[in-house]
Amino acid sequence: QALKLGMIPADGIGREVLPCAARVLQSTPGAPKFEFVHLDAGFEYFQKHGTALPDATIQSLKNDCDGAMFGSVSSPSHKVEGYSSPIVRLRKELDLYANIRPVIGVHGTKDDDKWVDLVIVRENTECLYIKKEQLDQKGSGNGPVATAIRQISQHASSRIGKKAFEVALARQQMRVKAGIAAQETGKAKVTVCHKSNVLSVTDGLFRTSVRSVFEDDQKSKGGPGRFEGISMDEQLVDSMVYRLFREPHVFDVVVAPNLYGDIISDGAAALVGSLGVVSSVNAGDNFFMGEPVHGSAPDIAGQNKANPIASIRSAALLLEYMGYTDPALKIYAAVDQVIREGKYLTPDLHGKATTTECQDAILKALTN
Amino acid sequence: QALKLGMIPADGIGREVLPCAARVLQSTPGAPKFEFVHLDAGFEYFQKHGTALPDATIQSLKNDCDGAMFGSVSSPSHKVEGYSSPIVRLRKELDLYANIRPVIGVHGTKDDDKWVDLVIVRENTECLYIKKEQLDQKGSGNGPVATAIRQISQHASSRIGKKAFEVALARQQMRVKAGIAAQETGKAKVTVCHKSNVLSVTDGLFRTSVRSVFEDDQKSKGGPGRFEGISMDEQLVDSMVYRLFREPHVFDVVVAPNLYGDIISDGAAALVGSLGVVSSVNAGDNFFMGEPVHGSAPDIAGQNKANPIASIRSAALLLEYMGYTDPALKIYAAVDQVIREGKYLTPDLHGKATTTECQDAILKALTN
Ligand SMILES: CC(C)[C@H](C(=O)O)[C@@H](O)C(=O)O
Ligand SMILES: CC(C)[C@H](C(=O)O)[C@@H](O)C(=O)O
Repeated sequence: QALKLGMIPADGIGREVLPCAARVLQSTPGAPKFEFVHLDAGFEYFQKHGTALPDATIQSLKNDCDGAMFGSVSSPSHKVEGYSSPIVRLRKELDLYANIRPVIGVHGTKDDDKWVDLVIVRENTECLYIKKEQLDQKGSGNGPVATAIRQISQHASSRIGKKAFEVALARQQMRVKAGIAAQETGKAKVTVCHKSNVLSVTDGLFRTSVRSVFEDDQKSKGGPGRFEGISMDEQLVDSMVYRLFREPHVFDVVVAPNLYGDIISDGAAALVGSLGVVSSVNAGDNFFMGEPVHGSAPDIAGQNKANPIASIRSAALLLEYMGYTDPALKIYAAVDQVIREGKYLTPDLHGKATTTECQDAILKALTN
Repeated sequence: QALKLGMIPADGIGREVLPCAARVLQSTPGAPKFEFVHLDAGFEYFQKHGTALPDATIQSLKNDCDGAMFGSVSSPSHKVEGYSSPIVRLRKELDLYANIRPVIGVHGTKDDDKWVDLVIVRENTECLYIKKEQLDQKGSGNGPVATAIRQISQHASSRIGKKAFEVALARQQMRVKAGIAAQETGKAKVTVCHKSNVLSVTDGLFRTSVRSVFEDDQKSKGGPGRFEGISMDEQLVDSMVYRLFREPHVFDVVVAPNLYGDIISDGAAALVGSLGVVSSVNAGDNFFMGEPVHGSAPDIAGQNKANPIASIRSAALLLEYMGYTDPALKIYAAVDQVIREGKYLTPDLHGKATTTECQDAILKALTN
């Protein structure tokens, strides 16, 4: 029986790169059969229909689909009455509480001199993204004052903490399996990113909740804990960005509240050549949605110039999270090969290939 | 008559680098005479006296001092009852609403290949830094929930916007004076950094307030506006960090709400070799306080290893803002010379010099 995947291209280049991901999924040796269900969402959809995320999309994802892929959204930069970001809403509606963003260089490319192999585990449901904002037109006599509420709960912080340790564990097991000693690749580690020197209550709670996951595990009776062999440290978000630029190799898994996670994952993306290669999966307990980290890039949309790699890797990440590790690894390897060869890369990677040519090179590498 | 400067070394390496700044100020040809007033603050002070910022410090700054220099604070990473960051409080108490952070490479060093010459103008009084946080132990049945309020006012956003355009104007005039055509150095520009695609109310207000400063100026009757020749664009904070890493040369002046400003200035610092060279001035309408951007670096404190350049440049920036441009330029030039020669640099810049040796090299360059 085929796996049903909800495909939500949304806006801009999302519409060009998502079909590439679908083609790769269909052509991967060892992958299950897929049935793709086209679903609507996006700012353009909002402009025509008055909603950015129709109920039908949510219902189909909840009731019919086994997983999903999301493209990219255009956001109005100013307040548009009635508009609310469909991706932010989807993450919440489907309780996809973890946004997992691997940022990994490819050996044999110029990335080698600043080695990056890390995963950002971003909390995906709260922080300033709860969108509780207010405008007080009068303020206290000094003109309008706007406020937003930032929410950090122990519940959400603990579960994202747990997810981060699980990601670290899986990476560690992968390294062992591949015969790579931990010393060579950076010790298995979770870094908690926060700003508790200013936000002692909210980020304080985030920090202690993540710490507790680890400490409770260490205290677990009857033998070593599940996360044995993984260490933990922390980094203030400002220093995090600084160190990310300067010594990215020191990081393994970084766990962060929603907004910091958003910012540092774009920062990390700059270290591996282009946002156009960075994938993510929005993960809940039983549902997963792949999503390239890049935006809808209106400046190049419709020109067959967009880099399909982020979407293709996101599809592989989706497969991995759905339990199909082997075909996922095949896709990663095919992408790495195309990057390393450097012949069919899009302009963001200083190449001259079109979206289609890059996709075709990956398809070829996959089946060779 | 001597200028009275309040000197607040605070914690860690602040105590080592602030005296270097004082020595340089005293030795700069053409600088006024100074009287330094030692003032207390910091986490270590808190541990002894129960307050991180004694009233005497605030009173002296308000009543006796013409300006000030701040070192660096150690922050407890968890909530310590009764502790509140003295630097955050000082900025607010003295209404030093603009944190101006130039990040500028030195020609003739390896920074040349990624040219950085930008100023971050960070709002310094509100955003999440108002520290209105609460902890609800019960939440809605799912465990503790913490909240923080993020405040963005039109008043604060407009005045920081105005400051940003003034900084852009001053930079433009400086380039013209130095005979450097704007085309060569990046057009005079203010980039507004925000995340109004998610925070449409708060960041929406920030964005429109800054825009209004510019648009009102353009509409000003009777001839060209004050900010004629300066352009404006905007950048979402996540993309901002990405572009900062990849094409820092496209930025001139970046204006940002408090927390984004904090994060992107650390990011920018990574591009010029070390946080140890990045200066700032906290500016109000009539009072200025120089402050290196780096922290208290407990790991190297007391070892005569800290880089004094950030403090020395901050002292020059203070002079500049107090109206003493010529001696300020002399200090900048002396620092650039020492960086370019590369003989007396501290370990953060891969050198072997001590704090004192680096300071002495700058003193020598100043008076030669
Ligand atoms: C489009 C925007 C709402 C989104 C976010 O901030 O989460 C994007 O930047 C991302 O990283 O997925
Ligand atoms: C120490 C801390 C409170 C401070 C801040 O966040 O403003 C620091 O990071 C800075 O940039 O000056």
